[in-house]
Parts: sequence; C-alpha cells; structure tokens
Amino acid sequence: MNSEAITLRAKRVAARLEELALVSEEEARLTRTYGSPAMRAANDLVSSWAREAGLGTSIDAIGNLRCRTMGESATLLLLGSHLDTVRDAGRFDGALGVVAALDCIAHRTPRKFEIELIGFCDEEGVRFQSTYLGSRAVAGTFDRATLALRDDRGIALGEAIRIFGGDPSRLDSCTVAREALLGYVELHLEQGPVLEVADEPLGVVTAIAGQSRLAVEFRGQAGHAGTTPMTMRRDALTAAAEFTLAVESSARLQGGLVATVGRLEIGQAASNVIPGQVALTVDVRSASDTTRRVAVATLESIARSTAARRGLQLEWRIVQETAAAACDLDLRQSLKQAVTASGHVPIELPSGAGHDAAALTEAGIHSALLFVRCRGGLSHHPEEFVSEADLGAALAAMDAFLASL
Amino acid sequence: MNSEAITLRAKRVAARLEELALVSEEEARLTRTYGSPAMRAANDLVSSWAREAGLGTSIDAIGNLRCRTMGESATLLLLGSHLDTVRDAGRFDGALGVVAALDCIAHRTPRKFEIELIGFCDEEGVRFQSTYLGSRAVAGTFDRATLALRDDRGIALGEAIRIFGGDPSRLDSCTVAREALLGYVELHLEQGPVLEVADEPLGVVTAIAGQSRLAVEFRGQAGHAGTTPMTMRRDALTAAAEFTLAVESSARLQGGLVATVGRLEIGQAASNVIPGQVALTVDVRSASDTTRRVAVATLESIARSTAARRGLQLEWRIVQETAAAACDLDLRQSLKQAVTASGHVPIELPSGAGHDAAALTEAGIHSALLFVRCRGGLSHHPEEFVSEADLGAALAAMDAFLASL
Repeated sequence: MNSEAITLRAKRVAARLEELALVSEEEARLTRTYGSPAMRAANDLVSSWAREAGLGTSIDAIGNLRCRTMGESATLLLLGSHLDTVRDAGRFDGALGVVAALDCIAHRTPRKFEIELIGFCDEEGVRFQSTYLGSRAVAGTFDRATLALRDDRGIALGEAIRIFGGDPSRLDSCTVAREALLGYVELHLEQGPVLEVADEPLGVVTAIAGQSRLAVEFRGQAGHAGTTPMTMRRDALTAAAEFTLAVESSARLQGGLVATVGRLEIGQAASNVIPGQVALTVDVRSASDTTRRVAVATLESIARSTAARRGLQLEWRIVQETAAAACDLDLRQSLKQAVTASGHVPIELPSGAGHDAAALTEAGIHSALLFVRCRGGLSHHPEEFVSEADLGAALAAMDAFLASL
Repeated sequence: MNSEAITLRAKRVAARLEELALVSEEEARLTRTYGSPAMRAANDLVSSWAREAGLGTSIDAIGNLRCRTMGESATLLLLGSHLDTVRDAGRFDGALGVVAALDCIAHRTPRKFEIELIGFCDEEGVRFQSTYLGSRAVAGTFDRATLALRDDRGIALGEAIRIFGGDPSRLDSCTVAREALLGYVELHLEQGPVLEVADEPLGVVTAIAGQSRLAVEFRGQAGHAGTTPMTMRRDALTAAAEFTLAVESSARLQGGLVATVGRLEIGQAASNVIPGQVALTVDVRSASDTTRRVAVATLESIARSTAARRGLQLEWRIVQETAAAACDLDLRQSLKQAVTASGHVPIELPSGAGHDAAALTEAGIHSALLFVRCRGGLSHHPEEFVSEADLGAALAAMDAFLASL
C-alpha cells in the first residue's frame, strides 16, 4: 500500500479517536468508567464502525464489545485493547488499539483466518479498583469474588454488570475458545519515553513487567529542631531519604528494573520539628520476576540496616505482587518482521505498565504487544499524543503482520 | 539552706506550677495566649503570690506582670520568664522561670539590690504570630508596626492591648531604665536532651542560637513509575532525599550547628508516579552566626549542584534569619559558680530555642539563662516534666547566684 493511502487511513483513525474522545461521562474532559452510559455509547459507536467494515458485533455478558469477521475459517486471531479510560484521560490509551486494528481488519486482503476484535470494558479499574475485568472474562480467569466489589456509591460489580445489560451468572460465556486460536495481539501507545528517545515509532514488547508495591514506615522520635543535638536525633526523614536513594541506586545498578518512591509523608510535620515518623511507598517493576524479587529483598535488608543503625523502628509491608507476563516469542518475531517490512527498526522493550495482554498471557493465551511512540512519554493525561505519521507506521506494520500469518 | 528546706520549697514551686497550669483558655488542656482572660487570671494569681512575698506588683502598658522588691537600693536585677504558653502546653515552659524566681526572691537574705520579677505576656507568639512582644516592650525595641498584626478573628494587636487593659500609645512606659541595671537572668527548662544525657540537672547557656529558615523546592518531571527508565527520570524526590542527607551531614560534620528538614511535600503524589515536584523546609541554627551563614551558603551550593546534575530546577528562598544572641560573660561566670556551689557540675550549652533573654540581649541588656533538665527533652507538650529534685537544684543555684552578686 502506498504512503498516501496510509496517510489517509491514519487521518481517519485520528478523526475517529477524536470523535470517540467526545464520548465521556464528564463534561469537557474524557472519562469513561466501567458500566457508564458513556461506555455504552462508546461500544455503540465502535460497533457501528465495525458493522460498516462488515464485521458482526455483539456485547458479551460482562460488557466487552466483540466484533468478528464473517468468513468461514476455523482459525481465529484476537485483536483489541480497552475502551474504558482513566479520569481526565487522553484519547489514545486503549481506544487507539481498537480503532487502528479495526482499520487494518477493514483493509486486509488475504483472509486466511478470522479475526475477533475486542473492545475490553474495564482495563483501568477506575470504578471498582479492579484489574482486567473484561480481559479476565475473555481469558476464563474471572474471579467471581470480585462481583462483590463496590464502587464509591455502594453499587456492587454484580449489580453494575446487570445494569449495563450483562449477566453476572453467564460470565463463562465470555470466554474465548482455545481451539485454533492463533493468539492475541494488542496495539497500544507506549506510555513511556523509550521510543521517543530511540527516535523510532514502533516497539515490540518483550514482557509485561511484574510489580511489587511496598508500604514502608520509619518510626523514630520527634524532637525540637533547635534544641536536639545532631548526635541525639532519631530522625525518620533522614532515614527515609537514605532509603529513597537506595531505591534509586538499586534500579540504576540493575538493568531491567525500575523502582520508585512515589509517596512520602511525614507524620505531624512542622518546620521546627525533627520528623518522628515517615511513611512511604515503593513501586518495583521488572520483566524478570527473579530480578524484581532479589531487588525487593535487597531493599528490605537496606531498610532494616538503615533503621537499626539510626535507632528507628521499621514497618515493611508488601501491598501487592504481580508476576511478569512474557510475550509469545513467535508473535514477537512476526511483529518484528512486520515492523521491519514497514520500513522501521523494531525496538524491543518491556512494558512497565499493565495491559489486557497480561491477563490473556496469564491464562496461557499466546499474546504480543506492539507499542507506538507517544509524545514526551505522556499518558493518562489529556495532552497524550500520537502523531499521524506514527499512526500510519502502526497501521502499515499491523497490515504487514496480518498478511504474514 | 539544708536540703530538707529546699525539698519543701521545690514541692511548693511544683504545686504552684500545677495550680497555674489550671489557668487556661481551653478546657482540659493548657493554652494561654496573649490578651486572653486566662492570661489576665495568670497575672492575677502570680501577683497574689508576689504580694504575699512582699513585692509591689503592677501590669505594664502591654500586659507584662511587673513585681518589684520594696527596698531602697538604686541597683536593679531583672529576673523572669513568660506566662503565655503554646496550645496544649506543658506546665513548666515559661511559668517555671517566674514561679521559681519568686520563691528565690522570697527566700533571699542579703538584700544589696532590688529585683524586678517580670512575667512576660507574649513569648510564644501564638495569637499574633509575633516574636517577644512583652520583652521587646521592656527592652525598648518594640516595633510599632506590629500593632497592625491581626489575630485569626481579625482583631489587631493594638486593639487587643487595649482590651487587655493596656495602652498601645504608652508602650514606652514599659521600658526598663538602664542606669544601675545589673542585667537580666532567666531560668527556663532546657526543652532539649543535652542535660539529661549529661546526667546533670543544670546548664548555663552560652548563647541563644541564631536561626535561618529556608524554603526549598525541586522541580523535575512527573512520569509513570512503570514505563520511565531510570536513566530518563528527573525525579524531584530523589534530589530532595540527596539534599536532606546533605543537610544532616553538614550539621553532623560541623560542631555547634543543628540543621533539620522538618517538612517535605511531594506535589500530586501517587504511588505509581515519579515525583515531579517536592517542597521542603530547612531550619538551621547555631550560636555562631558565621557558622550558620557558611552552612546555609554551602547547602545552597549543594542544592544547586544536585538540581543541575539531575536536570531539575531549584527554588531557594530564605524565609527568616535571626542573629545569635550571646549571653553575658560575667553573668554566665556567676551562674556557673552558683551551680558549682550548689553541688552540681554546670554544663555549658547553647540554646537552640528562642527566649525573652534574646530580646533583652539584642537591646544590649546583659542577660543570662540557666537551664533545668527536662524529661526526655520533651517540651511544648502536656507531658513536659521537671522533677522536684531538679527544681530543688535550680532553686539552690539561683539562691547562690543572688547571694553572690
């Protein structure tokens, strides 16, 4: 396909993303949470585009949009991403993967297998603080205990599913059949700065990073900042500062690891009081679970020795641990070849953020992720941006990928 | 005087402090701010004790309690401390110096000079965020611009003085005459842990530390904690952590200096977001103004190089600077001899907290401070505590001091 045609398609995808971004539950900014009227309207809008492209469409029992090519092959490839958003979102996160994939489906010529395009209904988990509700239903790993989760108005997830037109007792019907399943491929914006720094539009994800979330507290002794000599202090903040720098170095020294202190709060802070208590959070991620576990253990021993040396007490709590999800080697290889065929250098990188592909990988479905460069690495923000040129590159690579299978 | 008599006197001082602590503007906790009915009641109660001891009493034009021995010597020594308190105060801070001094005045035998005991009306500055209102009026350095300060109900200080029964147009009448003035001596609890660690009840202050209060801000770039590689971060918190440790080391390496980061706040903190902005406060104190100024300059250059190396912006603001006030050498010498005479080792130490003595020293009045050990260094807290034994030691030392002049 010539570059002019790709440019026109990229413009159409960009225009559709703009149109879809107006479908919001809030005025003047984009917010679409699970089960909202805006979510239903988004499903309707994308459905209408899918039907226009000749796909059959339906909404499954949890609320995912399912669009399927109407050929007769028994072999199936899943494409998709999510249609829900964070609050005050950008217009690319999730929607890009659905809208762009639909455009590629509409333009593909050899039709050796069927494609199901899925618009997942809850990836961000804003309303129920949940994880991957839509993709877990498709993967067959939906945990029925989550039906009892309540949103901040007290509505349980089970009830929300019903209100949205679904059926919590029939979630099994969402599950995709594994026979003759080629796998799942998701296009998503990077949400980080790696492709921008590499000066390339497309990246092939090696694995979705596993994550450890820690809650750490140092307890020393508050005291008067003027009258307590340095040698008699048990300052919780200087201990926390030492630990924060250890978190940073641990990840600087170890490739394939990121570690962040995102929150740090002093109990009863005042400018003339030595901090007696400091609570902080640590977020550690790696595509290698071993690397991540070793890092967390090392950080714990550093925190313990810092606290002991300074005469403080330490509280160390693992809030959450998620294993890494490796992308399928064959699909990665095909994506890399497709990126090369479309004229770009495929950058291999881990995904530090979670994606629906993680839920499918966890369930044993071969999955892969193609990343598109986003401006300034910015995401979860109204100024999130992917250029039309990069949209075109993504469309061309997805075309080549679909043609290669 | 034998130790049994001192013990009885210490018990009486303790009982009076307990009684005075019930004079509060709040129920169930001790709070006495400038101009309050509680402040008037405290002045009345201490007045009655002073008259009982044979002193003449009055309230001056700003509201200080002035109690004077009725002899005929032209020579005058000032004793005193403050009768106002912080919110939810302990019962020793301020009141101790007034009540104990009164006991020593009542028990002194050679009466070679007159004594004026002053209960200062506003040292803590709780109501008007002011500094040394009472002692500055006595020192003759009251700044009339402060009359326009307003409390949180909108009442101006000038009006509050009138309501309290004073006269803002006659504050000059508060000023003590300098002829034949021996100086000012204040007894105060240490409000720090030095005497407790030294295992001695009494300390003689070398100087009231000068103070620099700084507001520092690091501005980097917020980012996703999962998708931003360590090498591409501009983390404001790790920069702030590095600087916080530099603040601590600068004071650990330099004797006679304390430096504290008391507040540290991350802008828009979230556990999965790299901090883009951090604001913190620094409190630097030293009895040597040169030491303090060199430390502040060094810290500024460390902050600037930390920010530059990490690609951050720095905002550096000096919020307040107060010069150190050196205590009078002769009075210090007399206090040390008095402590020794009373059977203890005088510990020399700077005062990291401010006191009325600083206002008098600033105005050129020879002043000195005798510190009494307080439990755990704790002050500005309802559990603030001075033992009866230590009260006795303070009374004996003050007796010896008064006898030596």
